[in-house]
Amino acid sequence: MERKVPIGLSNKHIHLSQTDLEALFGKGYQLTPMKDLSQPGQFACEEKVDVVGPKGKQTMRILGPVRPETQIEVSIGDGFVLGLKVPIRNSGDIDGTPGVKIVGPAGEIEIGKGVLVAGRHIHMSPDEAKTYNLKDKDVVSVKLDGPRGLTFDNVLVRVNPNYLLDMHIDVEEGNAAGAKNGQTATIL
Amino acid sequence: MERKVPIGLSNKHIHLSQTDLEALFGKGYQLTPMKDLSQPGQFACEEKVDVVGPKGKQTMRILGPVRPETQIEVSIGDGFVLGLKVPIRNSGDIDGTPGVKIVGPAGEIEIGKGVLVAGRHIHMSPDEAKTYNLKDKDVVSVKLDGPRGLTFDNVLVRVNPNYLLDMHIDVEEGNAAGAKNGQTATIL
Repeated sequence: MERKVPIGLSNKHIHLSQTDLEALFGKGYQLTPMKDLSQPGQFACEEKVDVVGPKGKQTMRILGPVRPETQIEVSIGDGFVLGLKVPIRNSGDIDGTPGVKIVGPAGEIEIGKGVLVAGRHIHMSPDEAKTYNLKDKDVVSVKLDGPRGLTFDNVLVRVNPNYLLDMHIDVEEGNAAGAKNGQTATIL
Repeated sequence: MERKVPIGLSNKHIHLSQTDLEALFGKGYQLTPMKDLSQPGQFACEEKVDVVGPKGKQTMRILGPVRPETQIEVSIGDGFVLGLKVPIRNSGDIDGTPGVKIVGPAGEIEIGKGVLVAGRHIHMSPDEAKTYNLKDKDVVSVKLDGPRGLTFDNVLVRVNPNYLLDMHIDVEEGNAAGAKNGQTATIL
């Protein structure tokens, strides 16, 4: 059986804790959902903030809902613009990552850590994992076809009842493959 | 035998014709070499120009020597910044590529074509090609190791007595692989 997976391209974005959200937007502030994302319950918000590094500034959209810890996901190229050397990490693994200044309409904060380049990964439900003979934390290679075709190694499989099948890569990885959102790839 | 090749990362840059160079910098102008590149006779110049697209502007370094036709090499991401949909082409294959405005210290020009995303390729001398059992226009796959390891398909081999072994990818391709300039990859 060919194990197909749709590709989702992640642009730079920020997840905020409720505390940091209120520091940036005001006491009791609630995020405004704009568009549902591929993973159930996740959404892009109307709100954006400025992320200010030692060399430059970027405006980033907030993804909701709020999380226990603030986390900023960028590409390596975004890191150059900000002036940060950003490590490749799995989501949530923020110890030792660089901090940065975040500016919102009602205030600004300095976070001591939280900026990372998200390691490429595939979300899937337990049923999808079973069908594909994969389990949580498996590492696979995924082939994308086309004029800029390539095979990504070291792709982390993440299995959770809240997930739906989708492979997340950043914009640089997508452009390196000439890939479009929703394009289908093959798990080898 | 393992067929190793060093990686060279190409940032956005411009090659100018002598006519366009003079339109931008003044009559009789000669480029000022700053740094030799990997390919014999090719050099980065002190001079930069502004490239102005429908959506944005980027400053780009000139690479010398002058060429018969002006050509601008960008990443797909650079194309977004400029506001251009830029096709992936081999160097010199500029028919049907978008044009753009170029602004220099002594004048500005509109080119009707010439902006491309360079297809990934490997330069090699005839002797190196013989050793690797490859010939001009062969298409190979190349594996890069590391946490962001991947294998690039559709890599064009270019053989010429003026070339030295080096694989050229753009910054997005390099970042997608977590690659550094000079890192070694393997032709499969």
